[in-house]
Amino acid sequence: MSVEEETEPPAPNCFRILIATDNHLGYLEKDPIRGNDSFQAFAEILTLARDRKVDFVLLGGDLFHDNKPSRKTLHKTMTLLRQFCMGSNPVAFSFVSAQDETFKTAFATVNYMDPNYNVSIPIFSIHGNHDDPSGDGDLCALDLLSAAGLVNYFGRAEKVDDVQIRPMLLKKDGGVKVAVYGMGNIRDERLYRTFVGKKVRMFRPKEDTDEWFNIFVIHQNRVKRGPTNYIPETFLPDFLHLVLWGHEHDCHIDLEQNDEKGFYITQPGSSVATSLSEGETIAKHVGILEIFPDKEFKLDKVALKTVRPFVMGDIVLADIKLKARQKMDEKRISDVLCDKVDEMIEEAKQQWLAADDEREEEDFPKPLIRLRVDYSNFTTLNPQRFGQRFVDKVANVKDILHFHRKRQVNTDKKSK
Amino acid sequence: MSVEEETEPPAPNCFRILIATDNHLGYLEKDPIRGNDSFQAFAEILTLARDRKVDFVLLGGDLFHDNKPSRKTLHKTMTLLRQFCMGSNPVAFSFVSAQDETFKTAFATVNYMDPNYNVSIPIFSIHGNHDDPSGDGDLCALDLLSAAGLVNYFGRAEKVDDVQIRPMLLKKDGGVKVAVYGMGNIRDERLYRTFVGKKVRMFRPKEDTDEWFNIFVIHQNRVKRGPTNYIPETFLPDFLHLVLWGHEHDCHIDLEQNDEKGFYITQPGSSVATSLSEGETIAKHVGILEIFPDKEFKLDKVALKTVRPFVMGDIVLADIKLKARQKMDEKRISDVLCDKVDEMIEEAKQQWLAADDEREEEDFPKPLIRLRVDYSNFTTLNPQRFGQRFVDKVANVKDILHFHRKRQVNTDKKSK
Ligand SMILES: [Mn+2]
Ligand SMILES: [Mn+2]
Ligand SMILES: [Mn+2]
Ligand SMILES: [Mn+2]
Repeated sequence: MSVEEETEPPAPNCFRILIATDNHLGYLEKDPIRGNDSFQAFAEILTLARDRKVDFVLLGGDLFHDNKPSRKTLHKTMTLLRQFCMGSNPVAFSFVSAQDETFKTAFATVNYMDPNYNVSIPIFSIHGNHDDPSGDGDLCALDLLSAAGLVNYFGRAEKVDDVQIRPMLLKKDGGVKVAVYGMGNIRDERLYRTFVGKKVRMFRPKEDTDEWFNIFVIHQNRVKRGPTNYIPETFLPDFLHLVLWGHEHDCHIDLEQNDEKGFYITQPGSSVATSLSEGETIAKHVGILEIFPDKEFKLDKVALKTVRPFVMGDIVLADIKLKARQKMDEKRISDVLCDKVDEMIEEAKQQWLAADDEREEEDFPKPLIRLRVDYSNFTTLNPQRFGQRFVDKVANVKDILHFHRKRQVNTDKKSK
Repeated sequence: MSVEEETEPPAPNCFRILIATDNHLGYLEKDPIRGNDSFQAFAEILTLARDRKVDFVLLGGDLFHDNKPSRKTLHKTMTLLRQFCMGSNPVAFSFVSAQDETFKTAFATVNYMDPNYNVSIPIFSIHGNHDDPSGDGDLCALDLLSAAGLVNYFGRAEKVDDVQIRPMLLKKDGGVKVAVYGMGNIRDERLYRTFVGKKVRMFRPKEDTDEWFNIFVIHQNRVKRGPTNYIPETFLPDFLHLVLWGHEHDCHIDLEQNDEKGFYITQPGSSVATSLSEGETIAKHVGILEIFPDKEFKLDKVALKTVRPFVMGDIVLADIKLKARQKMDEKRISDVLCDKVDEMIEEAKQQWLAADDEREEEDFPKPLIRLRVDYSNFTTLNPQRFGQRFVDKVANVKDILHFHRKRQVNTDKKSK
C-alpha cells in the first residue's frame, strides 16, 4: 500500500461522501480461497472512508449477498462496522428533516445523533434485492445493523404500488444542503407499473426547495432485461442532480448525464465479482463525491486495490490447427487450453502489477480466470479435472472453463 | 402495576446485581398467543434492573431458546437491550482484571468501558446449552450481541477437557470486591469427567486473594439425571461464596447452603415455561443480590408479574363413578375433564389475582393449563379437539390434556 498523504477533513462548505454499492458480504463465504474477498473489499472501502475523512458513506443496496446472512457473516460485518464507524471524531453535518420519518424504528434516530453512541462515520444504506425485507417480522439484515446502531437503513417504501419517498435533509454549516432520496429494491416489473401509474412520488422540501442538491439512491435493473423488467432513467424526475444506481455490477462509476432529464448517473458497481461475467472484469471502484454550494459537485473515482484480479478470455478450438483425429484427443485439447490459461494468469499478473508501483510479484493473489471455449466439432473436457492443474495458481479452479458451441452472446440476465 | 418508590442507587460500599437465567428468548415465537411471552418477561427483568438501579445484570445462560435465533428474535432482543441498557447513567464500578483476558474479541473490552458506547446497565452472560457456540466460525448468538456492544459474553472455556477459569474482578469505591467466575455450558458427562480429572481450574487473584466475594455462574444439570449426567455441587471449590446455577428451570432462588463446601447456591429458574412440567409451575422470580464489605451479602427475590399463569392438575378417571358402559363414552369423559379444566382455570385466576392487589379480573391472561389424565380402563380423547372448547380461555389449547395409564412419575429429563 502506498503511503497516503494526510487528507484534510472537508470544509464546512463541502459535503464529502463515499459512494459504493453491492458489497455482497458473505459471498462464497465457505470457499477456502475466496471466502474473505467480500469482507476484504468492504474493509478497504471503510478504510478509505476513514482516511479520506468523508462526512458519510452512502451505499446502494446488496450489502449482504444472502437474505439471511450466516452468523459468521453478520458477526464479521458488525465487527468491521464497529471498528471503522464508531469513534469520537464528531460528525460535521446536521440531519434537519424529521428523523422519525426516515427511521421507523424504536429509536427513530440517525445513529450519530443517538446520545449513547459515538459515531464518526455514519453509513446510510437502502436494501437491495439480495438483502430485502422478508419472512416473519418482515425484516432484513439491515434492520439488525440498524438496531445495533451500526447502519442507518433508509428508503423502504411502505407500499410497492404507491411509493412515497421523503428525503433525508442534510446540511453543513457552510451552507451546503443535500437531500438524499432512497428507494430500496422492488421487483422491476412491479415498480415499472407503479412508475407508469404515476404512483412513485418524491416529496421535495417546501423550504428552500431549489437550494437542495438532490441525490437519489436506487437498486434496480438499469439495463433493459425485458419490456418492463428495468427502470428507464427517464422515469426519474428532472429535479434530481445525481442518481446513485446500485444493482448493476459493472463499474460505470464515471458520471453519465441523461440528456433528456439533465441529471447525472453514477453506477459504482459491485465490490466483489459474484459472477464470472464480462461486466465483473471491469476494474472495481468506489467514489468520493464532493458537493459544494450552488449544487457544484465532483466525483473522484478510487480503484479498489484488494479486489481479486479477474481475466476473462475466449478461444475457438476450430481456429487451432489440429488434424481431424486430434479433435477428440482430450490430452491435446487440454494442453492447448492450459497454455491459454497460463497466458491469462500472466496477463492478470501484469495488470495487477501495473496498477500499483509498490506491488511485488510474490504478493500476486490467485486470480479469477474464466476461459470461454467454443468447442464446436471438438470434444469437451471435465472442467473440474482440468482445474486441478491450477490449484496453486487460480482462485476458481472448478469453473475456469466454460464450454459453448457458438460464440456466446452476453445476455447478462443474472441476478445481481 | 404498583407504583414503586424511587429506589436509591447502591452505595459505594454495595454491589447491587440483578440475577436471572434461562430467558429462552424466542420460545414459541410463532405462537399467536404465547409468541411474545419470553420477551415480555425479559422486558420486565430489564425494567426491574433499571428501576432498582442495579450495578449490573448477571445471566446464567440460555438467553436464547434457539441456537440460531430467528431474525425477528434477534431484532427484538437487540432492540430491548438497546432500550434498557444504553444510557447516560454512569456505571459505578471498575473492571480491574485484564479485559482482554475475559473478552477475546476484536474490541477486548467490557462494553461500558468502550468510549464509543454509553452503557448504563452492563449485562454479563455465559452461554447455555440452547445458545452455545456452534457451526462455521464457532460462534453463538451472544457473540453477535457482544459485537454490537449490547452484552458482555464471558465464561467460554477454550478446551472442554482442560477448563481454565479466570474471574472478572469488579471493584467499587467503597471497597467491595467481587470476582465473577463463569463457565458456559459443556455437555454434562464430559464436564463431569474433566472435573474428576482435576482439569477444571479456577484461578484466584494473587493480590488480596481472600478479600474477594467469589461468584460462580454455571449452566449444567444440578439434578442427577444419570450417574455422571450432572455436576455435583461438591465438585465446586469451597472458596466460592455464591453459585448462580442456570439451566434448571424450577425456581429455587432462595439461598441454599451446601453444608460440605460452605457456599450458597441460588437457582433462579427460567423466566418462561418451556415445558408443561411441575417444575415450571413454581412461581418465577429473579433476584436482587447485594454484596457488602467483608463478604456480607443478601438476596431479595422478586416475583415476575408478566409471566403467564400456569396450573397443573391430575385426574384419575377410575376415581370417577361411571358405569362400565360409560367408560367408553367420549362425551361423558369430555364433560368430566371440561369441568376439571374449568376449575383449574378458576384456580389460576384466583392465584393470579391474589398475587397482586391491583390486578383486575378482566386483565387475567389466558393461562397455561395442563391436566394429566390417568385413563386406565377408559377411552382417551383427541386432545386437540378437546382443546377447541377452550380457545378463548386457555393459552395452550392443543396440549391441555396429557393421557397416561398410571400415575406419572416426573422423571424430569427434558432439555432445559
Ligand atoms: Mn442487486
Ligand atoms: Mn448486487
Ligand atoms: Mn439449559
Ligand atoms: Mn434453559
